[in-house]
Amino acid sequence: MGNKQDKMKKIKQALISVSDKNKLKLILKILKKFKIKIISSGGTYKKLKKLGYKCNEVSKFTNSSEILDGRVKTLHPKIHAGILNKRNNNSHKKQMRLKKYENIDLVIVNFYPFEKTLAKTKNHKNIIENIDIGGPALVRASAKNYNDVTVITNIGQYNELIKELQNNKGSTSIEFRQKLSEEAFSKTAYYDSIVTNYFTSRTKNVFPKRKIIYGNLIEKLRYGENPHQEAAIYSYNKSLDIVQLHGKKLSYNNYNDLYSALNISKTLPKNLGTVIVKHANPCGISIHKDKIESYKKALACDPVSAFGGIVSCNFKVSKKLALELNKIFFEIIIGSGFDKEAITILKKKKNIRIIDASNLKIKNLHNVISNFNSLMFQSPDNKNFSKKNLRIVSKKKPSKQTLNSLIFAFNICRNVKSNAIVLTKNDTTVGIGSGQPSRLDSCKIAIEKMNKFQNINENDEVVAASDAFFPFVDGIETLVQSGISAVIQPSGSIRDKEIIKFANQTNTILVFSNTRHFKH
Amino acid sequence: MGNKQDKMKKIKQALISVSDKNKLKLILKILKKFKIKIISSGGTYKKLKKLGYKCNEVSKFTNSSEILDGRVKTLHPKIHAGILNKRNNNSHKKQMRLKKYENIDLVIVNFYPFEKTLAKTKNHKNIIENIDIGGPALVRASAKNYNDVTVITNIGQYNELIKELQNNKGSTSIEFRQKLSEEAFSKTAYYDSIVTNYFTSRTKNVFPKRKIIYGNLIEKLRYGENPHQEAAIYSYNKSLDIVQLHGKKLSYNNYNDLYSALNISKTLPKNLGTVIVKHANPCGISIHKDKIESYKKALACDPVSAFGGIVSCNFKVSKKLALELNKIFFEIIIGSGFDKEAITILKKKKNIRIIDASNLKIKNLHNVISNFNSLMFQSPDNKNFSKKNLRIVSKKKPSKQTLNSLIFAFNICRNVKSNAIVLTKNDTTVGIGSGQPSRLDSCKIAIEKMNKFQNINENDEVVAASDAFFPFVDGIETLVQSGISAVIQPSGSIRDKEIIKFANQTNTILVFSNTRHFKH
Repeated sequence: MGNKQDKMKKIKQALISVSDKNKLKLILKILKKFKIKIISSGGTYKKLKKLGYKCNEVSKFTNSSEILDGRVKTLHPKIHAGILNKRNNNSHKKQMRLKKYENIDLVIVNFYPFEKTLAKTKNHKNIIENIDIGGPALVRASAKNYNDVTVITNIGQYNELIKELQNNKGSTSIEFRQKLSEEAFSKTAYYDSIVTNYFTSRTKNVFPKRKIIYGNLIEKLRYGENPHQEAAIYSYNKSLDIVQLHGKKLSYNNYNDLYSALNISKTLPKNLGTVIVKHANPCGISIHKDKIESYKKALACDPVSAFGGIVSCNFKVSKKLALELNKIFFEIIIGSGFDKEAITILKKKKNIRIIDASNLKIKNLHNVISNFNSLMFQSPDNKNFSKKNLRIVSKKKPSKQTLNSLIFAFNICRNVKSNAIVLTKNDTTVGIGSGQPSRLDSCKIAIEKMNKFQNINENDEVVAASDAFFPFVDGIETLVQSGISAVIQPSGSIRDKEIIKFANQTNTILVFSNTRHFKH
Repeated sequence: MGNKQDKMKKIKQALISVSDKNKLKLILKILKKFKIKIISSGGTYKKLKKLGYKCNEVSKFTNSSEILDGRVKTLHPKIHAGILNKRNNNSHKKQMRLKKYENIDLVIVNFYPFEKTLAKTKNHKNIIENIDIGGPALVRASAKNYNDVTVITNIGQYNELIKELQNNKGSTSIEFRQKLSEEAFSKTAYYDSIVTNYFTSRTKNVFPKRKIIYGNLIEKLRYGENPHQEAAIYSYNKSLDIVQLHGKKLSYNNYNDLYSALNISKTLPKNLGTVIVKHANPCGISIHKDKIESYKKALACDPVSAFGGIVSCNFKVSKKLALELNKIFFEIIIGSGFDKEAITILKKKKNIRIIDASNLKIKNLHNVISNFNSLMFQSPDNKNFSKKNLRIVSKKKPSKQTLNSLIFAFNICRNVKSNAIVLTKNDTTVGIGSGQPSRLDSCKIAIEKMNKFQNINENDEVVAASDAFFPFVDGIETLVQSGISAVIQPSGSIRDKEIIKFANQTNTILVFSNTRHFKH
C-alpha cells in the first residue's frame, strides 16, 4: 500500500478549538514556521488574535455564523468534509473541488472540562452545559481518517507534534498519526464513560445494561503476582491517594498486600489500630491507646508470619515506634503520617518501603473481579457491625466488656478470608484461622496459633468470632474445649438449636450477629 | 422549574438514520398517527420510501448534498441546531427564526455495526470504515439536550417509544427523555470503548494511559458475597458461555466458586479431570481415564469439605457418574456436556444446579481487581509448567513417573491460594494446604488432611509441590518427616543450599521449577 514516503502527509491547514488555552504559543510558532493556515472559533480565535497570529474564523470559513451560545460552531459539512475526505480517492477529490471545500490536515482540540466541572459543582444544568458535542465530533472524524489527518487531543502532545513537524519538514508520518488516533479514541471513550457514569449515578442505576469502568494509568509494574505475568495499576482518579515516602518501587504483590492491610486498618477505631499482613492475610491486629502496645500486641499474635510482612498503623508513626519496628524486617510500613525522625530511623533498614496513607479514604465504589469473560461487581462490605444487630441466645449473658470484645472480633472477621475464625483477647487477635474449605479446620488453625504464641491463663477471656454459621457442633466444640468462653456467629444453620444447647451445657456465651461476612 | 406539564414535549419532527433497519414499520406507523414529520438520509430514506412513508431527505432539508460516500450527511448546522437549541431560551428561539431553522424533537439513530464488523473481519480498512461519525454526533447532541429532545439508540426501545407517544398523545415526558439520554451516553461510551480497545490491541498497547473496560449486563444477582451487598454479573461479550441446564438462579458465591473450579478443570488434561471446590478453594482434584475413578479419587481427598461444594468435570457426565454424584449433596455440578439420563438423575436431588461449560474457553483477557480507588490489571497465570523448565538439584534423581507426578502437583499449586502446598499420589491430591501467611502452616495443614483421609502405605509415593520457595528448612522437613519422598518448588531462597543439603541427607528428590505461582 505505498511506501513510507507516500504515507507522509504535508500539513497545510489546521483547525484549532481548545477549551484549555495554555501553551498555545508553542504550537502557533511551529505552524507559522511551516506556513500552516489556521482556522479557529470562539474563544480560541480571540486568543490567537491576541497572541498576534493570523487565523481564519470558522464562521467565515463555513460562511455560517456561530450560533446558540457556541453550541453549534464546527458541526458543518465544510469542516467535516475537510477532515473526512480520503485524499487518495478520486471521487472524494472531485467532490471537494466541486464544493470548493478545503482539506483540514491537523485538528487540535481539547474538550469542555466535564470531569473538572463535576469536581467543582453539583449544578446539573452547568454540568450538562459542559458536555462537549462539537469537540468529540471533530476528534472522532479526524481519528477515523488518521490516514490523512493528524489529531491532537491534549496539551501533553504539543511537544511530540512540534518534534514530528520539525523532523519531517511540516509533515507527519503514518505511525505518528495512528498513535494519535489511538489516543483520540481513548479520550472520547473516557470522556463519554465519565458522562454516562454521571448519569447513572444520578439515577442510582448502579447496574446499567452496559457497565463501563475506566482508570488512569498510575504505573506499569515490573510484573504481576508472578514474574511471567504483566501488570499495571490504574486509578479511577488521577492518583492513588497514598504517598510513598521512601523505598523501591512497589510491586503488584506489595500493592495487593498493602490494600489488604488498609482495608482493615481503615475500619479499626481511629488512632488506635495496628494491622500486620502477610500474603494478603492478616496475621495480627490490635487496638490500644498506647500505640507501642498496639503494635507489640499485633506482632505477638504471630511473630513468625509477620516477618517480611506489612505493618499498617491507622495513626501517626512516632520515633519511638520506628525504633520498635526496626527490630524486625518488614517490607512496608504504612502510617497515617510519620514523625520526621521516624522516617530517618526507618530508612536505616534496607529494602523498606514507607507509605503515608492519611489521605486515602474509604469510598463506596463497587468492587470488581474478572473470570474468563465475566466481570462481577458488588458493593463493598462496609457494614460495621454494632450492638443493635445482635441477639444473645445463650443462658449465660455477656458483660458489656465481653460484648465489646465479641463485636471487635466479629468486625475483624469481615476482613479475613473465608472460612474465617478470629480469636481475640483484650482487643487483640490471638488466633486467626482463614481460607479453609472446612470451618472446623479454620477453628483448629486459629487455636493452634493461639497455643503456639500465647500464654493464656485461666482468668483470661478469649472470645471467638465466625464469619458464617457453624454447620455442625464440632467447630464450636473445638473452640470451647480450648478455653474460649464466648462465641459470636451469624446463625442460620439447621443445627442452630443444637449449637445453642451445646453452649448452654458448657456455660458458653453465644451471640448471634445475623450479619454474615463471607470474603473469598 | 415548571410543573410536570411544562416538561412534556410535543414531537413535531423526527430525524431517522439507522444502520439496522429492522422493525422500522412499528415506528413509522406511530409517527404518522401523530403527524410527525420525518427527515432521513441515505439508505434509511430509501427504505422509508419503499415502505410507503412520506419523508424529507436530509440533503433537501439542509440544502447540502450527501458527500464522500456518506461520510458527511448529517454533520450540518441546520440539523445540529435543530437538535441543540434550547426551546425555552428566547435568544435561541430568535436565532432559529432568523436562520429559518426547524426543531428536531426526536432522533432515531443506530450506529454502523463496529462490534459486529470486528467479529466478522480482520480487514483494517473495512473496520475503520465502520466507525460511525455522524451517528454518535447526532446521539450525543440529542442526549445533551434531553430537556427538549427524545433520542432512540436501539431497536429495543421502539416499543417504549410507541407506548410513551400513545400515552401522551404524541408527547414525551422529561423522565422518559432523561432515561433515554442516559442510555444514549452509555451507548456512545461503549461504542468508543470498543473502538479504542481495537486500536490498543492492534498496537499491543496493553496498558494505555487510560484503560477502559466494559461489560454487558447478564443479570443482577440477589446479593453479593453477603446479603447486605448488592451485586451483578456482566460479560465482555453478550453471554457468559456457560449454560445452566437446571436449578435455581446462581448466586454471587456460586459464580465465584464455579469460576474457581473452572479455572482449574479447564487447565487439567482434557477429558480426565475432576475438581471439587468449596469456598473458592479446591478440596480435591484428580485425573484418571476412568471417569468414575477420577471423581471418586477427587472426593476422597477431603470428603468432609466437599459436602455442599461444587464438582467440575472436564468431560461429559454419564448416567453412571450421575448416580455416584447423587450419593452426596453438592450445590453445583459442572460438566463438559451431560448425557440426557444423567440430567434426569441429577435433577432428583433438591437444590442442585447443573451447568454445561463445554463452550467456555480460556482467554488471555487481563484479570482485574479493585481496591479503594485503584484498579489492578494483570495477565492471567496461564503458564503450564513443563519438563523443560525444571532443574533436578538432589542427588537422588526422579523416575519419569515421579517427575510427571511432580509436574501434576506443581500445576495444581497455581490454582491454590498462597501459601500453597499440594500433596499428590497417583495423579490425585491427597492434601491441600492453602491461604496461610506461613508456608510451614500450609505444610502442616496439607499433611493433617492427608493423615485424616488417606491410608498411605510405605510403598505409596506421595510428592509435594510448593507455589513459592521455602524460606527455611522447616517446611520441607515437616513434609519429609511425614513420608513425602519428592518435592518441587521454585527456588530463590537464601537458604536454597541448606534445603538441598537437607534433601540429600534424607534421600529426598528435590526439583526446582524456577517458575513461581503466587495466587492471593
